[in-house]
Amino acid sequence: MREVFQQELREVQERLVEIANLVAESIEKATTAFNQSNVSLAEEVIEDDYRIDALAVALDEHAITILARQSPVARDLRIVVSALRISASLERMGDMSTHIAQLARYRFPDKVVPKSLRPTFAEMGRLDVEIARKLAELVTTENIELAEEIRNDDDKIDALHLSVFDKVLGETWKGEAVDTVDATLASRYHERFADHAVSIAKKVQYLATGDWVPEDV
Amino acid sequence: MREVFQQELREVQERLVEIANLVAESIEKATTAFNQSNVSLAEEVIEDDYRIDALAVALDEHAITILARQSPVARDLRIVVSALRISASLERMGDMSTHIAQLARYRFPDKVVPKSLRPTFAEMGRLDVEIARKLAELVTTENIELAEEIRNDDDKIDALHLSVFDKVLGETWKGEAVDTVDATLASRYHERFADHAVSIAKKVQYLATGDWVPEDV
Repeated sequence: MREVFQQELREVQERLVEIANLVAESIEKATTAFNQSNVSLAEEVIEDDYRIDALAVALDEHAITILARQSPVARDLRIVVSALRISASLERMGDMSTHIAQLARYRFPDKVVPKSLRPTFAEMGRLDVEIARKLAELVTTENIELAEEIRNDDDKIDALHLSVFDKVLGETWKGEAVDTVDATLASRYHERFADHAVSIAKKVQYLATGDWVPEDV
Repeated sequence: MREVFQQELREVQERLVEIANLVAESIEKATTAFNQSNVSLAEEVIEDDYRIDALAVALDEHAITILARQSPVARDLRIVVSALRISASLERMGDMSTHIAQLARYRFPDKVVPKSLRPTFAEMGRLDVEIARKLAELVTTENIELAEEIRNDDDKIDALHLSVFDKVLGETWKGEAVDTVDATLASRYHERFADHAVSIAKKVQYLATGDWVPEDV
């Protein structure tokens, strides 16, 4: 029984890795689409999001089956519950990629943000991609140093998020309302993407170390 | 054993009702703070959010204990898993109230949005409050007609959310960048609040009818 359970847990982990890799691919394409105004790449992200959603639903069903068949307790139980939560957060990360891609599509052939903000969004995008790659690696290897790195990257994104508002609300801002709306939403999506990654990293850290971290409060 | 389990499920439901009522209180105060620029009410919402968070964490722990002690299967198992998801969504609804209250606090003593948008936000706020009250009643009574009403109210909020962008991006918009930013964020928070309610309503509907609704895709 124990061996079957371990095998089933490995399968849960493999599925999480698969979804995390798709999320990394999704944010890479979304940020490229956003920065370079690449509408076909944006559409690819939007169309492919159903794969992340479907895999997350399938993973949840698998986790519920494990709960039913194996009735795990203690740490094993928390692993399965954590997997359910990680899958929900990965699914939301895919949604954030999609929202970023949608902004690129709406504004095509224009770029989403005016020149003065492009370096900021290039950096936010780069960090989100970095975070997504580290997250996929973290889920694969449980190397918890990556969790710390993800938290640090998230701090940088939070600072960039605030700097977007400083810029948009500053006296030198010449953007029109549409630029202000897009910059506000895009910045929020980038920031939320990273938040979800931090939330997942905490759970993986728990799975690796046994130190339970409560839900973000 | 079965009787103990039913008793424990009732406790889960009572806890969900308690959190749902706090969320309804929170969005009522937040929208009043937002519409009337009431900073003390805004601070109350922000300070009280920890109660929702703490109750959600406690509920999760309780649900995990039930999984460990009772090893429920089939529908009983799905009820407990649904409770975990409902608690996560309620917690996020509390966050949305808090974000709305934070906008009111930042802009105090000014109002958050210019006159031309106030009727729209008054209506969005009214609908969010309505949704939160219906949700608390739905969790209490499992009267699934309320789930349908919540979906209809959410459709209205989605339409208002789009109308905010029409207004802000229209030729008659005279708002400054700060108004555009605040309107964009506030509208997004109101819309997300309602989305979470719809997601919860689906799960309660399942609990009442046995028709499993997959996670939002």
